Amino acid sequence: MLKLYYSPGACSLASHIALEEAKAPYAIQRVDLKAGEQRSPEYLKVNPKGRVPALATDRGVLTESPVILGYIAQTFPDARLANMGDSFAFGDMQAFNLFLTATVHVAFAHVFRPTRYGDGDVTAAAMRTKASATLDESFAMIDRKLSDGRPFVHGDQYTVSDPYLLVFSRWLDRADLGPVDKFPLVAAHRKRMEARPAVQKVMAAEG
Amino acid sequence: MLKLYYSPGACSLASHIALEEAKAPYAIQRVDLKAGEQRSPEYLKVNPKGRVPALATDRGVLTESPVILGYIAQTFPDARLANMGDSFAFGDMQAFNLFLTATVHVAFAHVFRPTRYGDGDVTAAAMRTKASATLDESFAMIDRKLSDGRPFVHGDQYTVSDPYLLVFSRWLDRADLGPVDKFPLVAAHRKRMEARPAVQKVMAAEG
Repeated sequence: MLKLYYSPGACSLASHIALEEAKAPYAIQRVDLKAGEQRSPEYLKVNPKGRVPALATDRGVLTESPVILGYIAQTFPDARLANMGDSFAFGDMQAFNLFLTATVHVAFAHVFRPTRYGDGDVTAAAMRTKASATLDESFAMIDRKLSDGRPFVHGDQYTVSDPYLLVFSRWLDRADLGPVDKFPLVAAHRKRMEARPAVQKVMAAEG
Repeated sequence: MLKLYYSPGACSLASHIALEEAKAPYAIQRVDLKAGEQRSPEYLKVNPKGRVPALATDRGVLTESPVILGYIAQTFPDARLANMGDSFAFGDMQAFNLFLTATVHVAFAHVFRPTRYGDGDVTAAAMRTKASATLDESFAMIDRKLSDGRPFVHGDQYTVSDPYLLVFSRWLDRADLGPVDKFPLVAAHRKRMEARPAVQKVMAAEG
């Protein structure tokens, strides 16, 4: 059985929702980031990078959100969580997910965990200013992508990009960089996501 | 025909090498980053994110190195640039590539392009210190991964992770954070890569 290592509200939320949407058999194990459990010898055996999410499979452990999301989509094709069997469409979906990883998540990390990138108050303030601008630009770009009137990131078909975007549209509150209503189509997408039964079940499970 | 938008020595080098190893029919178009061409209206039509690489296909444009690398591997399966038809092995390969994207490339970017993350000399110096530590830790981890005595990142089979690692083992010189010999197995991997005919041909083409 699959086992997802997660922390409540972290980017592991997307993988958690994808497992639920896929109706996959899975277990979850919480990693207490505040207590530093991600740096414990036990967890470093699971993921030497000391991050969540990690997905333990019977073949070994997968890490990095877009990888886990892609794997869930491929392993449970009946759930149609990606446009399978079409390497261009799959790549186009993953390009969006990589943008969330390498630009949007990295910008948030400069606000939430500035010491990952540089020590000192001056540096933290400078990084926050730049991250805020990067996030404004990024969410404006995502808002334009959603402007075709279709309900999901990639159009009429729900994909794993949808719960992954939800992670970051929620973080706008946490980082006090919102409100999300600055980006009306992102805000509407978030509401649609939060209304899904799978999302409500996962939110309740993460607490 | 595929067309790769690249800048000499940028991370687009990995996609360029993968196209060559795949014996793909392709053209290349240089984007002059120093002149700011990535922000020109023409290029933003290709890639609204204003970055290289971008791969134009007859279906549209793909971006983000791991996505382009995965697409090349899937589109030219005879070249065996990934363990195809095995979603775990493919995911495991992509997890390594994502680590290069989200941790290693991001750390280098703090050295090469500090103003992407924060303005001011104090901030640039603080970021450089932290990036240097992150890169030491990351390359030490990659060195351990290579310690099984096999020639490629994922063992006996060459994959797209190999040219992607080459990008960053070369950047250790550019960032003056090396020498690469601090990481002897990474240094040996780089030499093996640089000796491949496809790599030599691409290096000559990029100039």
